[in-house]
Amino acid sequence: MKALVYNGARDVVVKDVPDARIEAANDVLVKVTSTNICGSDLHIYEGRTDMEDGRIIGHENLGEVIEVGPGVVKVKVGDMVCLPFNIGCGFCRNCERGLTGFCLSVNPGMAGGAYGYPMMGPYEGGQAELLRVPFGDFNCLKLPEDAREKEADYALLSDIWPTGWHGTELAGVAPGDSVVIFGGGPVGLMAALSAKVKGAEQIMLVDRQKDRLKLAEEIGVTAIDDTDGEHVEKILELTRGEGAACGVEAVGWQAHDPQGHEVPNATMNDLVASVRATGGIGVVGVFVPEDPKAEDELMQKGQIAFDFGQFFTKGQRMGTGQANVKQYNRQLRDLIHAGRATPSWIVSHHLHLDEAPGAYAHFDARDDGWTKVILHPDGATT
Amino acid sequence: MKALVYNGARDVVVKDVPDARIEAANDVLVKVTSTNICGSDLHIYEGRTDMEDGRIIGHENLGEVIEVGPGVVKVKVGDMVCLPFNIGCGFCRNCERGLTGFCLSVNPGMAGGAYGYPMMGPYEGGQAELLRVPFGDFNCLKLPEDAREKEADYALLSDIWPTGWHGTELAGVAPGDSVVIFGGGPVGLMAALSAKVKGAEQIMLVDRQKDRLKLAEEIGVTAIDDTDGEHVEKILELTRGEGAACGVEAVGWQAHDPQGHEVPNATMNDLVASVRATGGIGVVGVFVPEDPKAEDELMQKGQIAFDFGQFFTKGQRMGTGQANVKQYNRQLRDLIHAGRATPSWIVSHHLHLDEAPGAYAHFDARDDGWTKVILHPDGATT
Amino acid sequence: MKALVYNGARDVVVKDVPDARIEAANDVLVKVTSTNICGSDLHIYEGRTDMEDGRIIGHENLGEVIEVGPGVVKVKVGDMVCLPFNIGCGFCRNCERGLTGFCLSVNPGMAGGAYGYPMMGPYEGGQAELLRVPFGDFNCLKLPEDAREKEADYALLSDIWPTGWHGTELAGVAPGDSVVIFGGGPVGLMAALSAKVKGAEQIMLVDRQKDRLKLAEEIGVTAIDDTDGEHVEKILELTRGEGAACGVEAVGWQAHDPQGHEVPNATMNDLVASVRATGGIGVVGVFVPEDPKAEDELMQKGQIAFDFGQFFTKGQRMGTGQANVKQYNRQLRDLIHAGRATPSWIVSHHLHLDEAPGAYAHFDARDDGWTKVILHPDGATT
Amino acid sequence: MKALVYNGARDVVVKDVPDARIEAANDVLVKVTSTNICGSDLHIYEGRTDMEDGRIIGHENLGEVIEVGPGVVKVKVGDMVCLPFNIGCGFCRNCERGLTGFCLSVNPGMAGGAYGYPMMGPYEGGQAELLRVPFGDFNCLKLPEDAREKEADYALLSDIWPTGWHGTELAGVAPGDSVVIFGGGPVGLMAALSAKVKGAEQIMLVDRQKDRLKLAEEIGVTAIDDTDGEHVEKILELTRGEGAACGVEAVGWQAHDPQGHEVPNATMNDLVASVRATGGIGVVGVFVPEDPKAEDELMQKGQIAFDFGQFFTKGQRMGTGQANVKQYNRQLRDLIHAGRATPSWIVSHHLHLDEAPGAYAHFDARDDGWTKVILHPDGATT
Repeated sequence: MKALVYNGARDVVVKDVPDARIEAANDVLVKVTSTNICGSDLHIYEGRTDMEDGRIIGHENLGEVIEVGPGVVKVKVGDMVCLPFNIGCGFCRNCERGLTGFCLSVNPGMAGGAYGYPMMGPYEGGQAELLRVPFGDFNCLKLPEDAREKEADYALLSDIWPTGWHGTELAGVAPGDSVVIFGGGPVGLMAALSAKVKGAEQIMLVDRQKDRLKLAEEIGVTAIDDTDGEHVEKILELTRGEGAACGVEAVGWQAHDPQGHEVPNATMNDLVASVRATGGIGVVGVFVPEDPKAEDELMQKGQIAFDFGQFFTKGQRMGTGQANVKQYNRQLRDLIHAGRATPSWIVSHHLHLDEAPGAYAHFDARDDGWTKVILHPDGATT
Repeated sequence: MKALVYNGARDVVVKDVPDARIEAANDVLVKVTSTNICGSDLHIYEGRTDMEDGRIIGHENLGEVIEVGPGVVKVKVGDMVCLPFNIGCGFCRNCERGLTGFCLSVNPGMAGGAYGYPMMGPYEGGQAELLRVPFGDFNCLKLPEDAREKEADYALLSDIWPTGWHGTELAGVAPGDSVVIFGGGPVGLMAALSAKVKGAEQIMLVDRQKDRLKLAEEIGVTAIDDTDGEHVEKILELTRGEGAACGVEAVGWQAHDPQGHEVPNATMNDLVASVRATGGIGVVGVFVPEDPKAEDELMQKGQIAFDFGQFFTKGQRMGTGQANVKQYNRQLRDLIHAGRATPSWIVSHHLHLDEAPGAYAHFDARDDGWTKVILHPDGATT
Repeated sequence: MKALVYNGARDVVVKDVPDARIEAANDVLVKVTSTNICGSDLHIYEGRTDMEDGRIIGHENLGEVIEVGPGVVKVKVGDMVCLPFNIGCGFCRNCERGLTGFCLSVNPGMAGGAYGYPMMGPYEGGQAELLRVPFGDFNCLKLPEDAREKEADYALLSDIWPTGWHGTELAGVAPGDSVVIFGGGPVGLMAALSAKVKGAEQIMLVDRQKDRLKLAEEIGVTAIDDTDGEHVEKILELTRGEGAACGVEAVGWQAHDPQGHEVPNATMNDLVASVRATGGIGVVGVFVPEDPKAEDELMQKGQIAFDFGQFFTKGQRMGTGQANVKQYNRQLRDLIHAGRATPSWIVSHHLHLDEAPGAYAHFDARDDGWTKVILHPDGATT
Repeated sequence: MKALVYNGARDVVVKDVPDARIEAANDVLVKVTSTNICGSDLHIYEGRTDMEDGRIIGHENLGEVIEVGPGVVKVKVGDMVCLPFNIGCGFCRNCERGLTGFCLSVNPGMAGGAYGYPMMGPYEGGQAELLRVPFGDFNCLKLPEDAREKEADYALLSDIWPTGWHGTELAGVAPGDSVVIFGGGPVGLMAALSAKVKGAEQIMLVDRQKDRLKLAEEIGVTAIDDTDGEHVEKILELTRGEGAACGVEAVGWQAHDPQGHEVPNATMNDLVASVRATGGIGVVGVFVPEDPKAEDELMQKGQIAFDFGQFFTKGQRMGTGQANVKQYNRQLRDLIHAGRATPSWIVSHHLHLDEAPGAYAHFDARDDGWTKVILHPDGATT
C-alpha cells in the first residue's frame, strides 16, 4: 500500500510499504478515506521528536471497515468509522473511567498510545491506504448515513474537535462564562467552537496570524492580535478588569514571540494574568518532558518559569493533557449529524495523499490560508 | 483590651489597645476564648510579609458573642461561634457560589479578606480579648452545646482543618484512593485526617520532623522521612510504581532541603513525580506573587521552575488557593459533634495570651513537640 | 400605593393599599417597573390555594431601588434590579450552598419563602407600585446599563427563565443530548431555550396549544401536538426507539387530557416512557402536598399513581422542586446582556397594572396568543 | 458439571448439566469457588419472576480462571477473579460512560444483562462448578494475592457491596451527612458500611429483624425497629426535626407491614417523609414494571401511590436502578485489600453447593441468623 513515511527532519515521502492487516482477534482493518495533518505532526516533521525513520505518520483517521477480527462483534465490514487518535483497550483502570488517552494496556510503561507517533507504541499511522485499528469495537466510532456527505466534519472528530473541547472541559467552561483561548490554530479554533456550543457569554482568541483571526471572527469570536504585546490588557478591559472566567492553552511549548524566539512560559503566564481569581485553565497545547534542542535552558529539561505565586494567590485551577477523545466524540458526532455544528469551516485544503509532502511544507511554514489539510488516500478530493 | 501586636520581624508583644467594637449594622462582637497561632502567622513573624507595625495578628478565632449590630438576625448574644479566617460578604459573585476565600466586597481591589493579615483588608486579628466580625450572620459558625467541652477541636475549624480538607478536595480525593501529602505541619496533618475521613485507601505523609511524623502515624498514616532524599522512590514503591492517585502540597514556597536552603519548586516537582498519570494535586501551602527576600532568583518574582512537561504528559490536574472555609466548616463541625473526628490530637500547647511571644519563638524554631498552639485570652487553659 | 389584591376565587382587583416600606436594616425598597403574571399565580386565581383575601399577588418583579436600609452596602438608590421570586437570607445551611429556594430563615417552619404567595411567608407581592425586598444585598440582582432597553428580557430572570433552566439542570442536560419537554407554557418554553443554549442536539416540546407550539418552533424546537395521544410514540421514533436522554416536566399536577379532565400522573408517566434508560428527569411543574379540590382521589392527598417499576428498571434519575433562582440569574443576565439569548420572544402583552384583572382572565382561559403578560405599574408600555 | 437449577416455585435442585465452555473469542471460563445467594434470587425462588425451568441461578460469583478465548489479553489462566453480576460489553454508549448495568449489547432489546436471571439475557448462573464470562477482559476484576484469604470479602464485590454503595452514590452521601437506610438485608447493611466509609456523620437503619439490627449496630449504626410504626418520628427526632440529608431504599416492591401484608409504597413514602428538603434518595431495592401476582392493585401494573406532592415541595432528588458494579468494584477491592473495610462481617453461612436447596428455604423464610450465604462449589468451606 501507499503511505507517507518519515525520513528525517523535514523529509517525508509517499512510498509503497507492506499492507496493514489484521494481527489480533479484536483488530479492525480500515480503508482510509480522510486523514488529516495535525499540528503535532509538525513536531515530528521538524525533527523535534524521537520518531524513527521509516514509520508512517498520521493519527487523525477516518475510513471504511474492510475486515474485522474474530473477536469483533459491533463493527461490521462496510461501516464508515472515525478513529480517536489515542488507542484504548477499554478495560484498564483508566479506560474504564473514560481516560482513554492514558490507556495502561496498549503502550506498556507509558500511559497512552496513538497511531503513528513517537513514544506512543508500535502502531502505524493512517496517512496511508490502510490502517490497522486495535480493539476495534472500542476504538471505532460508527458514523451515520451522511458519513460521506459530512466527511470533512466527521474527520475532525479523530482529534482536533475533541481536543479543543477537552480544553474547555478542563477549564470548566459553563454557560454564561467568558473564555479566553491562546492559540488560533486548528485546536484553538475548535476550543472556540466548543465554548460557543456550550453557551459561553464571551469568547476571546489570541493569535497573530490573519487567516486564523479571520476564521475566529467568522463564528462570532473576539479576535485579539498579540503582535503589539498588549493582549493581556485587552482581555482585562473586555472583562471589566477581572479577567476571563476560563482560559485555554492551545499553543504549547513552542510558543514564540513576534520576533520568532521560543518563549515556552509565555502563554501559561499570560493565562494566569488573563484569567480571573478562582478561574480555570485547560492546557491542550503540547508540553514535552524534555527537549534537548530547545533554546530555553529550563525547557531543555521540560521546565518553565511559571508564575506560581500569582496562580496560587488567584486560587486558579488547571487541567492538562491529551484529550480522551472517546469521552466526547459520540456527542460531537451527534451535533454534526443534527446540523448544530460545522467544524469543517476551518478546513482549507483537500488533497490527495501524493500531495502530502508539499502540504507539510506549507503547513509547517504557516503559509497564509493553510489552516487545515485533509488528505484522501482514496483519491477523492471534495 | 489586651492584644498581640506586630512590632517588626521576630518582635511581637502583648499590650493594651482600644477595644474592638461594633462598627456596622451587620457586625458581631466576640469575646475570644481560643485563638490559634497559624503557620502562616510565621511568615508575618519572620518579616517576610508587608505587615504593618502595630496591627493585631490572629485569624484562627473562636469565642462568645457579646454584642450584635441591628442588621444581625441569626446570631445571638451568648452564642459560642467559630470564625472562618477568611471574611466574606455573602452576596458577591464569589461568595454566592461558595468561594468565600475570594470575596469581592470586603477587600476592594483584591479577591479575599481575612483577620489580622497583610494585604487582606483592614480587619484586626483575634489574638486579643475582643474581635469584630463583619457580616456576622454570614461569618459566624454556631457551635452546639458541647462547644466548651470540645473547644480545642472546634477551634481548628477556623482554618487548618478546612484548609487541609480543601487540599484533599482540590486533589479530588475519593474513597479508595491513595494520597500523598507533602508537609506534616498542622495543615498537612489535617489533610491526612481529611483523607482518612473520606475513605482513602492509603495515606502517605512526607516530612522530616519526628514529632510530626509520629502524629501522622497515630492516625494510621504511612509517615515518610525525606531526609535521605529517597521519598519519591518510596512513594512509587508503595503504589506499585504508578504513583499516588492524589497529592496535597502543604508546605509552600519556603520549602527547604535538609541542609536548610529554600528550594521553592521542590515540593511541586516532587508531587508531579509522585502522583500518577491523570491524578490530581491540591495546593494549600502558600506561594506568594513576589518575595524580594527569597534566596531563589525566580521566587523573588513569584516564579518556580516547574516540571510542566512532565505535568502535561501525565495529564495531571491541579487546584490551588486558600480554603473557602465556609464550604466545609458546617459538616466538619457535625463530624466533631458526632464524635467521628477529633482533630485536636495535634494540639500540643494551651497557653494564656500573655505567653504568645514565647510561643511564637518556639513554633517558629520548629522546636520538637510544638506542633500546634492555642492561645486563651480569657485565661482558661484546658 | 396601587396594588393587585386577591379577593377570592377568580376575583382580583387593583386598589389603594398602604405603601410598602423599609422594615429591617437589610431591606431595600423598589419602585416596580415590570411585574409578570406567572402560571402559578393562576393556581391562586382559580382558588386552588390557601391564599388569604386582601394579600397582594406577584413574585416576578423588576424595578428601581428608591431606598435602602442601614445594613445594605452593595445595592444603591437608583440601581435597576431584578428580584428572584424566592427570598433567601444568604446565611442558612441551604442558602450558603446555593439552595436559595429552600431558605430556612425567611419562612420559619418551611423551607423557602417568596413574594405574594400562600404558605411562602408574610411577604407582599410585587404587582404593585412598591415592593419591600428583605436581605436586599443578597436578593437584588443588579442590571447593567441596558436595563431599560432589554427590560422584557431581564424581567424573565425573576422566575421563568431560571425555572426552565433549573428543569434542564435537574434533568442533567449536557451538550449533544436529546431533550423532551412536557408543557409549552412560559416555563416549558424557557426550558427549551435553556436546552438550546446548553448545546442540546435535539429538543422536543409537547403541548396542544397552537400559539405555544409555534413559539417553540420559532427557536428550532420540534413541536409535538399531543391531542391524538400518540406523542410518546413520536418521541421514541425521533430518538431511534430509545427515548430522549433527558426530560423536563413543566406542567404540574393540573395536567389534563384533551377532554379537559385532570390526570395528575399523565406527564410523569409519559416522561418515564419517553426518556431512555439511565436518563434524567427534571420536574419544575408544581405538584402540591394535598389538594382537597382535586378530581383525582390520590391527588387529594398529594399522591400520584407513578410507574415506579418502569422508572426503576430504566435506572432513571429525577430532581424536583422550585428553582434556586440566584444560582442561575447572574449568568443568564450576562447571556442577555451579551446578546446570546432573547427570552422575551414569548412575551405577548405589556399592560398597565390597571389592566391586570382582565389579563388574569385571558391568561387563565388560555386564550390564544396570551402566552406571557408583563404588567407595568409605572405606566410604561413598550 | 454440577449446578443449582430452577425447577419451579420454591423448587431448586443440584444436578448434572453440560459443562460451561468458551463460546466466543473474548470469553473467559471460570471455576467457581464462591457464589452467593442474593435477596433477588428469592424473587425467582418464590416464583415471582418469569424464570424458565431448567436454568442455572447465581449472579454473585468469584473463582479461578481456567481457560481464555483467543481475544483475551489481560486475564490469564490461574487468575482469581470476581465477576460483576451485570455483564457489559465495554464499548456501547452506556458501558463507555460507566453505566455497565445498562449495557446495550449483551441483551438486545433491553438495557442490561446478568448471569442466571430472568429477562437479563441467555447467560447461565454461577451456582455451579463452572461459569462462562463474556467479554472477559472487561468483566473480570482481578484479585490480589490475598484472594483466598479474604475470599468472603471479595465475593461481596460481585453485587451487594457495590449495590449498597450505589445506593449511597445515588443519594449523594457526602462526608458529614446524616443518612437513613430502609432495609437491613445484605444490601441495606452494605449501604450502611458504604456511608460509614464515606464519612457520614450519622447512619440510621430501619428494619424489624433482630439479627439484621444487631449487625448494623456492630458497625456503629443507629438501628431503628419499625415494628411499632414510629420509625419516621424517631428519624426526625434524631435529626433535629429536619430529616436526614440522604436516604437509601434497600427493600423494594415486596415491602410489607409488620402483619405481613405487602405495601409497595411504604418505604418510598416513608423516605420522602424522613429525608429533609433538598435531600437525595437512592433506590436500589428492586421495583418491577409489572407483577400480576401482587396483592396491591396498582403494583400489578408496576405503579405505586407515591407522595409526589410532598417529594416536589421538599425539592428532593432520586436516583434508581441496578448498580453499575464495575464503577465501584476496583476501589472497593482496594479498600478490602488495604484492610480499610471488612464487608464479610454479615456472612452467616459458608456451605457446599449441595446444601443450596436448604439454604434457599432458610434464607427465604428469613430464619434468624441466616443473613448471607456463600456457596462453595469446590467444596471448601472456610
